[in-house]
Amino acid sequence: MKIAILGGDGFVGWPTSLHLSACGHDVHIVDNLSRRWIDTELGVQSLTPMDSIQERTRIWTEQTGKAIGFHLLDVASDYERLKAWLAEHRPDAIIHFAEQRAAPYSMKSDRHKTYTVSNNVNASHNVLNALVATGLDAHLVHLGTMGVYGYSTVGAAIPEGYLPVDITLENGERAPQEILYPANPGSVYHMTKCLDQLMFQFYAKNDGLRITDLHQGVVWGTHTKETRLHPQLINRFDYDGDYGTVLNRFLIQAAVKYPLTVHGTGGQTRAFIHIQDSVRCIELALNTPPAAGERVKIFNQMTETHRVRDLAQIVADMTGADIAYLPNPRKEVEENDLIVKNDQFRELGLDPIKLESGLLSEIVEVAEKFAYRVDRTRIPCVSAWTEDLARKVETDPERRRLKVVSGG
Amino acid sequence: MKIAILGGDGFVGWPTSLHLSACGHDVHIVDNLSRRWIDTELGVQSLTPMDSIQERTRIWTEQTGKAIGFHLLDVASDYERLKAWLAEHRPDAIIHFAEQRAAPYSMKSDRHKTYTVSNNVNASHNVLNALVATGLDAHLVHLGTMGVYGYSTVGAAIPEGYLPVDITLENGERAPQEILYPANPGSVYHMTKCLDQLMFQFYAKNDGLRITDLHQGVVWGTHTKETRLHPQLINRFDYDGDYGTVLNRFLIQAAVKYPLTVHGTGGQTRAFIHIQDSVRCIELALNTPPAAGERVKIFNQMTETHRVRDLAQIVADMTGADIAYLPNPRKEVEENDLIVKNDQFRELGLDPIKLESGLLSEIVEVAEKFAYRVDRTRIPCVSAWTEDLARKVETDPERRRLKVVSGG
Repeated sequence: MKIAILGGDGFVGWPTSLHLSACGHDVHIVDNLSRRWIDTELGVQSLTPMDSIQERTRIWTEQTGKAIGFHLLDVASDYERLKAWLAEHRPDAIIHFAEQRAAPYSMKSDRHKTYTVSNNVNASHNVLNALVATGLDAHLVHLGTMGVYGYSTVGAAIPEGYLPVDITLENGERAPQEILYPANPGSVYHMTKCLDQLMFQFYAKNDGLRITDLHQGVVWGTHTKETRLHPQLINRFDYDGDYGTVLNRFLIQAAVKYPLTVHGTGGQTRAFIHIQDSVRCIELALNTPPAAGERVKIFNQMTETHRVRDLAQIVADMTGADIAYLPNPRKEVEENDLIVKNDQFRELGLDPIKLESGLLSEIVEVAEKFAYRVDRTRIPCVSAWTEDLARKVETDPERRRLKVVSGG
Repeated sequence: MKIAILGGDGFVGWPTSLHLSACGHDVHIVDNLSRRWIDTELGVQSLTPMDSIQERTRIWTEQTGKAIGFHLLDVASDYERLKAWLAEHRPDAIIHFAEQRAAPYSMKSDRHKTYTVSNNVNASHNVLNALVATGLDAHLVHLGTMGVYGYSTVGAAIPEGYLPVDITLENGERAPQEILYPANPGSVYHMTKCLDQLMFQFYAKNDGLRITDLHQGVVWGTHTKETRLHPQLINRFDYDGDYGTVLNRFLIQAAVKYPLTVHGTGGQTRAFIHIQDSVRCIELALNTPPAAGERVKIFNQMTETHRVRDLAQIVADMTGADIAYLPNPRKEVEENDLIVKNDQFRELGLDPIKLESGLLSEIVEVAEKFAYRVDRTRIPCVSAWTEDLARKVETDPERRRLKVVSGG
């Protein structure tokens, strides 16, 4: 299958590209390399030493004999070039990672909000629009987020995208309906993924586009089978306050003897998935496209749920790290339960990597190995959801103490 | 009250500006005049002779002694100037009409889809973002559309924005919830209004913005009390296939002895409101803002519902016009019922202008008076929702016959 991977240079995009190439597909990465530019903007870098995309793809070919194309193209701002590219290459499937993906980054300032909305909405719409304009019947697989559901559930398990409800009619009868799960995004970033959902619904209905939306949990882990093939194929690993995901951050904090920073009570329950499973799920989704005319197919791409403070405790027990409780810069519910259905991927044969079995190798092979590259001043989360929260975070005594410790 | 009217040069924006100025408010129109540019693009013009915005506001001051400011500013593409303008002028309320508002225009080509999505999403988001960034606690009143509900109802009346449903919990109990009415947009334009809704929900929740969203029906009529004050204050009147609303189109078709063109069976039921009531509703909404921390306030801004073929019959009976049934260029349900609640505006004292009482004056004072300015080749609807529908419309024998009649 010829596959275009939009955003194939990113954290999930890169190991996905390698995995699908290893599976024998003809993989083409389309990326504007914006994630590397954001590293430059923030003055941070991946914990793992990461080569240029050109060098990475060259080494992949050297190791495996398989080619991965790289095409420098801004999907969000250059509709005409995207359309021309699709018309020329005519991929069988498109995997769409080409969005700004960090909630804290999206809340940093008004400039970052504008960028996230404009970039993400235009990127998704340009892909949909170009598929219709070129008449290309490619299966579109989009990386969404569990965050579209919001994290306040009502005691019902979160279904895979569509929620059965009863509506009371004028005559008093109840009518059962299945609706797109009501959106309740927690940040501007999450909001853009909710906007994506509505655009997918429209284009599937009006134009019969075949779309799969993967509502992914928090990704952890670094290595996949393919990235292990050569040191220069290694995936990026973010630990900074904007792009680092919570578990990866705990691992690196433990490795450099920095306290594990928990926001609020740590009572937030989140869904998690290992990067290797993430890549495998994308392959499974790719192999089971919706039929033409079928509604958007939605998978919950996660394998287990944990409370943030429980995760911190697990890592603390394994490493001897301290835990520090800091004010939460996010506006969110302090404590929430989360029950999530992921039957579809389980039925397709997904056998998840569990936290307990995978954590230790992450600590040894990644966090401790590259700990010498950590910039401790980049560990704190500095983006707050509102001005009030920013002040609360900034003036917190525990936070100030950590700042002295970290030299930040 | 100091009021910024974004898009105040448009079809509803202009009479709203006059009405609120007449009420004694300090009105400032902020507009990029894009609607005039689109007239130029399409080679069409308002049936009513329309002066420049500078001339219109000058005449208003001459007639009433009241000033209306005009500020040339692109809300969608110039966030920094919008923010600076708001910081300087600090309006108490903002009325947001600054979006591309025609469904057929939004479906004309991929370029028009891109423009509509990018313009509308960025315009709305820029306003929200700038309100937060400037710390301005202005009441934001947005013109939405009944089309966010879609036109397929389930036998339950459409509530004002929020739908009560029952969810079945894990333990088998039913939990009542009130959710934002599930979106089911019928065009790219309608889709953008659904995206707006989600952005409003997020900014009300995260930042406590006070927002009112008016889900408006199809507007008909031309004159309001204020536009009647002077011939050069007249409102625009669109009759072309892209921007003309269905009833206005029937009136002008009758005036020039062109058949009333009904799409499909004409079984589509739509909600309607007279322009004078529309302006009055906006005033009512302005005077009853939500409290800080309150959820987005949603009104259904419509006064009556009719089936399209019934409307055609009413106009035919009054004028002797023929009715022509043409293939529907839109992808939509052929026949639908529509029951809509509008209790909130009725309780605030709205006393609607009914079709039967207002139609005749529209025929005499507008359609027949300016019939000499009609370009008959601009009457047909040429934008189709899909390639298949475009072919069906183009090859229809009745449509071809009309083309000969009209000289198009």
